[in-house]
Amino acid sequence: MNYEAVLHIPLSNYAHGIDEENVVFRIRTARDDIKSCILHYGDRACRVNPVIFSSEPMKIVAQDELYDYYEVVLHSPYTRICYYFELSDGVESKYYYYDMFMNTLPIERSEFYQLPFNRREDIATIPSWVQDAVVYNIFPDSFATAKGYISNKKGEAKFSHHTTYSMRGGTLKGIKENIPYFLDLGVNCIYMNPIFVAGEWHKYDLIGYYNIDPCFGTNEDFKELVDACHDNHIRVIIDGVFNHCGWHFFAFEDVLEKGEASKYKDWFYGLKYPVEYPDSQEDIPTYDCFAYERKMPKMNTSNEEVIEYFLDVCKYWTESYGIDGWRLDVASEVDDTFWREFRKTAKSINPDCFIIGEVWESAQHWLLGDQFDSSMNYDMRKNCRDFFAVDTLDSYGFDSRVTAMLMRYNKNIVHGQLNLLDSHDVPRFLSICQEDMKRFKLSVIFQMTFLGVPMVFYGDEKGLVGIKEHEYRRPMSWDKEEGAEIYSFYQDIIKLRRNKDTLKYGDYKTIMAERNSGVYAFKRWHDDEETYVILNRSEESIAIDNVIGDTNYNIDLSSNEDCKMVEPWGFVIVSKSC
Amino acid sequence: MNYEAVLHIPLSNYAHGIDEENVVFRIRTARDDIKSCILHYGDRACRVNPVIFSSEPMKIVAQDELYDYYEVVLHSPYTRICYYFELSDGVESKYYYYDMFMNTLPIERSEFYQLPFNRREDIATIPSWVQDAVVYNIFPDSFATAKGYISNKKGEAKFSHHTTYSMRGGTLKGIKENIPYFLDLGVNCIYMNPIFVAGEWHKYDLIGYYNIDPCFGTNEDFKELVDACHDNHIRVIIDGVFNHCGWHFFAFEDVLEKGEASKYKDWFYGLKYPVEYPDSQEDIPTYDCFAYERKMPKMNTSNEEVIEYFLDVCKYWTESYGIDGWRLDVASEVDDTFWREFRKTAKSINPDCFIIGEVWESAQHWLLGDQFDSSMNYDMRKNCRDFFAVDTLDSYGFDSRVTAMLMRYNKNIVHGQLNLLDSHDVPRFLSICQEDMKRFKLSVIFQMTFLGVPMVFYGDEKGLVGIKEHEYRRPMSWDKEEGAEIYSFYQDIIKLRRNKDTLKYGDYKTIMAERNSGVYAFKRWHDDEETYVILNRSEESIAIDNVIGDTNYNIDLSSNEDCKMVEPWGFVIVSKSC
Repeated sequence: MNYEAVLHIPLSNYAHGIDEENVVFRIRTARDDIKSCILHYGDRACRVNPVIFSSEPMKIVAQDELYDYYEVVLHSPYTRICYYFELSDGVESKYYYYDMFMNTLPIERSEFYQLPFNRREDIATIPSWVQDAVVYNIFPDSFATAKGYISNKKGEAKFSHHTTYSMRGGTLKGIKENIPYFLDLGVNCIYMNPIFVAGEWHKYDLIGYYNIDPCFGTNEDFKELVDACHDNHIRVIIDGVFNHCGWHFFAFEDVLEKGEASKYKDWFYGLKYPVEYPDSQEDIPTYDCFAYERKMPKMNTSNEEVIEYFLDVCKYWTESYGIDGWRLDVASEVDDTFWREFRKTAKSINPDCFIIGEVWESAQHWLLGDQFDSSMNYDMRKNCRDFFAVDTLDSYGFDSRVTAMLMRYNKNIVHGQLNLLDSHDVPRFLSICQEDMKRFKLSVIFQMTFLGVPMVFYGDEKGLVGIKEHEYRRPMSWDKEEGAEIYSFYQDIIKLRRNKDTLKYGDYKTIMAERNSGVYAFKRWHDDEETYVILNRSEESIAIDNVIGDTNYNIDLSSNEDCKMVEPWGFVIVSKSC
Repeated sequence: MNYEAVLHIPLSNYAHGIDEENVVFRIRTARDDIKSCILHYGDRACRVNPVIFSSEPMKIVAQDELYDYYEVVLHSPYTRICYYFELSDGVESKYYYYDMFMNTLPIERSEFYQLPFNRREDIATIPSWVQDAVVYNIFPDSFATAKGYISNKKGEAKFSHHTTYSMRGGTLKGIKENIPYFLDLGVNCIYMNPIFVAGEWHKYDLIGYYNIDPCFGTNEDFKELVDACHDNHIRVIIDGVFNHCGWHFFAFEDVLEKGEASKYKDWFYGLKYPVEYPDSQEDIPTYDCFAYERKMPKMNTSNEEVIEYFLDVCKYWTESYGIDGWRLDVASEVDDTFWREFRKTAKSINPDCFIIGEVWESAQHWLLGDQFDSSMNYDMRKNCRDFFAVDTLDSYGFDSRVTAMLMRYNKNIVHGQLNLLDSHDVPRFLSICQEDMKRFKLSVIFQMTFLGVPMVFYGDEKGLVGIKEHEYRRPMSWDKEEGAEIYSFYQDIIKLRRNKDTLKYGDYKTIMAERNSGVYAFKRWHDDEETYVILNRSEESIAIDNVIGDTNYNIDLSSNEDCKMVEPWGFVIVSKSC
């Protein structure tokens, strides 16, 4: 037995309640090492000694290159569980508890693994609506001035004594007037990059947290946009920038003016006096910033006044405008306590408020139920890049990463991950694909059929490209002829995603993922239906029934006419009863 | 290379700040597998691309049966760090990042491991005084009615319409009058099991949170006790019971009386109507309890009114009486949010308030800086039991467990673990040793020389024994003749512990821990001194200089006359400059 490979962590993605009655237990072992794995569980408050144990067999639910992941979802009669594993590799059998391999059970019950109390307050859940959502990400300045139009002209506007700037002329009215476009595309949620008053076109250098940037419109425009979206069953997520403000934010201006005498000096992180605004972008500021961006001083989010100020901002937009979610900028650089307070505030107003942290790395730390519901899943993009776009992974390697991603989070949480191929911070994925539409489409199919919430960056559905920032944030294409074919493809796959419970709610299992192969297949299942997705990133055709072992299926969507084969660089999605 | 064995978890005991400038990085590998391990680190906000990396070699700081633990404490020029490891086993060399073994570095900086921002708010620390503390745990009912005396008579007293009971007659005045005893023994902190109004002698079934139990005395007595302790540089820790109350607590009485109409119905967890007090201890109550103890209904600690009520309790005792710490009962069964609020409240009044959770299992979940400073380290007891008392472990196995315990927590946190051999909840350790004083003394030496805060359960220093509850909670021995020899031993080792910075602040390294051996040796070092502890749980003598490789040392404490050898079942503690 490969002892060193075995991993179990209590109170983590390896052991957690998914509701008050059901608890997930997982254990990781070396790939293909263990023949049987059994969970033994008992009531840790059992009134007799020794504790009475029951057992459940565990199954391999995922494999990556190095490991098997065994799992059981236990419908538990107990809220307080002590447990241990019994592992056998066919040669020897061991009990595993307290991170030790033993031949005997321990003397005291406290020596088993413990799930002390499956407390309802600590169960990580996501709002139920998000599993039905397909999100459309709008970079407001670049999107639309009005239906079917973007001026692509620089602009500026006044807010108090400040001037704010825009580059392409997008407005909130422009977004609102395109609601029919969203409906036509099939998305049912929009996430807008920042819209509050700020200097630059990207609006991440905030001047005011209570107003819409005048380049984009008015608070009234925003109210109308949200209401119109809601009338059309479209949810609205906005961008919250609390890690830092802009250098024209009133509190920072006060610090620049008064230095150590400013009553706002404790609102900022890492001030060194004299606090001065650097002349050039190359100078290191005398205050902490987002990165070293002098225009974005870092807030001290553990200061009580700052917390109160920002929680009021959260309340204002969540309550008065009825928004449905917050995407939180630079989330991993802000302290945990702030985010816990933020969550509590937002959820107290709207329990279904969807909270997404901008965390590029593994986000488990923030997804335990106390901070965010979701993170921006850049892993999705990275894995699709390596498998579909640049071929540095084979199907086996791709599956290995996908599996690791699924096992990394609590079971409820994976369904809320915001799965993206593109955002305002990265080169367009179609460019990463060297504009090879076949590769791009395979990635989109994967994105739309995987667990989690797919998010389309504006214009991806029209085939927009761009490597550099000003390119990938280029104006939306409103030419109906441009990208008509890819647009239609997006319509089809979004429609399928939104109509198939298997794709929205189903579990995930890899069906085909071999070394040196470009064919990747998996199934999703829910109730009495299963859906198979076959992605063929290779030059060879492959027979569908070879993959699913059955000829009795209905084709949901396919890249080709042939209903028996998946063509080279093609895909097929089929469903059948189970 | 044993890939499967390698473990690194960002933002955990494997990567955390210990202050604003210094960050600990650890990586676990298979035992004796890796020849070199290097940390490469860079500024994750680095203004040039690719990120400029520096490197630091990592060293093995601990080994257990299966793993080596590499560590480096990085004095980092950056608050935002991206990092990866370079592992070599002499045959091959790999980069390790994002849980992947690679031959090349990634395309994007977000693909490295991230310590997004070493935020001062999130650094887990402990109050500085605790590293100098030796704690004395008093079970109040059994300790003293007055100096040199315990009545051992049952008693009762009135509180409002309630009667409260005692079994042996201990009082707070009795504790206060024994301050000279604490000073003589050498302890400088007392932790008392519950003292608030409650029915039973153990006082875990609380009736009132604002009053001292009348069997024990008055609030004024408590004030005098705390003041007198402080005058003598003795800290005072009390027991907080918030998981549950007693069935005579006013809110539960209201529920019993009015059922669903009670305005306190949401104060309790898992009520099923009609809520009735079970006739017999064998009946399962219609409300959640501590275990199935009908006299201890479980509180709903996520109810806002309950939170407010208990935080006021926290404030009252912390502020008005100036206590130095809370030991929190059944801590692992209460929700995290409650504990975070509790910590915030206690620390806002007294930043040096020491917060200890009753967690018998691995407590990492609660020791990340946001909940507790410490947990009751029953591992200490368990490991000493298996090595010193019942011989089921050899020195190698014992070291393996000790090492795992050290690596389980953040670096600051291990110094705050409350290291116990005994408590009011377990058989006396001397009884576990079959009353073999040699085994017991070796365990005490280990307890007093290990990292963390040693805690002596009242009477252990007099050689009290007891297997069953009424035995191990037996009255304190006030006979000066009884246990004089072990008492004197405790005096010596406590004195040494409190006078040696190596033992209070030093790092830990295993020196000798071989298979099938009973000799265990380790060193602690601080500034320019090192202290070696050699424990000989065997029938053979062993030469001191064989263990430490030097003859130039001073003996601090020894079980025998011979200053060159450690006698069978003996110990030696020596120090030298380094």
